[in-house]
This record gives sequence, structure tokens and C-alpha cells, in this order.
Amino acid sequence: MSTVDFGYGPGARHQDINLDEEKCWSLLGSSGIGRFAFLHEGRINVFPVHYVVHRGGVYFRTSRAGTIASSVPQGNVALQIDSAQPQVQAGWTVLVSGDARPVEDEALVTELFGLSVSEPWAGGVRDYFVGLAPTALTGRQVFLA
Amino acid sequence: MSTVDFGYGPGARHQDINLDEEKCWSLLGSSGIGRFAFLHEGRINVFPVHYVVHRGGVYFRTSRAGTIASSVPQGNVALQIDSAQPQVQAGWTVLVSGDARPVEDEALVTELFGLSVSEPWAGGVRDYFVGLAPTALTGRQVFLA
Repeated sequence: MSTVDFGYGPGARHQDINLDEEKCWSLLGSSGIGRFAFLHEGRINVFPVHYVVHRGGVYFRTSRAGTIASSVPQGNVALQIDSAQPQVQAGWTVLVSGDARPVEDEALVTELFGLSVSEPWAGGVRDYFVGLAPTALTGRQVFLA
Repeated sequence: MSTVDFGYGPGARHQDINLDEEKCWSLLGSSGIGRFAFLHEGRINVFPVHYVVHRGGVYFRTSRAGTIASSVPQGNVALQIDSAQPQVQAGWTVLVSGDARPVEDEALVTELFGLSVSEPWAGGVRDYFVGLAPTALTGRQVFLA
């Protein structure tokens, strides 16, 4: 491979920038579809969830009998969201890292039910809230210059 | 909470089914945007990547200087893809688990460059291929009955 730099090599028009925390919170918004990533029996599992943001925490509902419920509390899990615009080869991704815990406070559960505009799409009773207390919030935006 | 089952409780119209391996391969297709989930310094990282499927393996290009390159080889990582249709509260998700390794075989790198229809959208030279040898392929589809 040539080591001469013509200033316009592969990927030269592709740019990426890191997003600050404020921008990441803005992209998270008040609710949306994210992907919850956690460890289960040594495997990294990644499942889509409907999340809501409430008082600096990220929450979602799941089944008491499911893989997620049996895997929390768990430290250093993540919720990821992204958006892609293939037509212009652009997009962004945000990663919320933190510790996930079941929500056991009844008053908080009631508050969260009040916030949940979207029912989970999977079947069965999903009244088990998991909360993620963010310890790191990072993001990246990619685009064509 | 009432224990009486009226047969039409919360989530009763929401259904979910597991997808078999054949269906999961079909949804992966020959290429697309997926999310690579791996461990880095004790945190689960999840980053979008452009993947290609080749001879039973899943591959993507990244930077030699990046977090992913410094984290492979790594066992039990995952690539996740999904699709959502909010209008009908339906969607599916597929999780490919396996061991990720850098592609060191020059002939295979050449083959993979031939397959990569999509440039990575992030900046810089991204000529480092990572391959994921699937050990488990699971998926789920959710929909309103």
C-alpha cells in the first residue's frame, strides 16, 4: 500500500465528531426506542426497549419473567440509540452507560406508568421497570464533508 | 394487584415470537447496518457498523487506531440488527453472538473489500476488518395481534 498522502484517501470526505453530554441528553429526548445491552451467562445481550427519561435516569418496562429481569441489578450496562440517514451517509449514535436496577419504589413506579406513552410491543404483562443511572454519556456524529 | 386473569390484561394484544436461525440469516441479508457490542475496560460498548455477510461470517471495517481494534480478539461479543414499524407497533430484532477476531488473511481482506459496497461513514482510514464467527443466532419478532 502506498504511504504517500494525497490528502484525499479512503474515507477522507467522511468526518466524525464526538458529542458532548448536553447534546447526548438532547438526542435521548424524553422517550424513544433504544437498545439495552447487558451480560447474561457470559454473553452480551442486546434487546430493543421503549425507554423514558425521568429525573436524570433512563427507565424501561419489561417482563418479570424475562432475561433482562433475571440479569439486573447489573453494573456497567448500556443503552444505545442511533439514527441513520443513508442518503447522505450520515448518522449519530449515543451510548448511556451505568448501573441497572429494578425499580422497587412504588411511588416511582406510579410516576413512570404516568410517563410511559408507549406500551412495550412484546407480549405478556410487562410491569417491571428497570432504571439505569447514567455514569457516562457519550456520542458520535458521522457525516460527509 | 389483582390476581384475577381476565384474559385481556395489559399487553394482551401484543405478541412476540422467537425467530429460527434460517429467518435470522435471512434478515441479516448480505449487508446492512448493525450494532457491534463488546467489552472495553469493563464497559459494554455498542457502536453502529456496516457489516457484510460472507461464507457464514459477519465482517465489518473499522480503524486500526480505534476502540474496537484495541478490543479484539474478544469472545462472546454480539452484533445486533433490528427494524421497527411504529405505526403498527411491530418490529423484529436479531442477535448474532460469537467471537470477534481481526482478519489477518490478505486474500480474505481482498475478498471483503470486493464485497463492501458501503464505505464506513466515520472519518479516517478504516481498512481493518473484524470478523465475527457466529456461535448463536437468535431473534424475536413482536406485533399486535
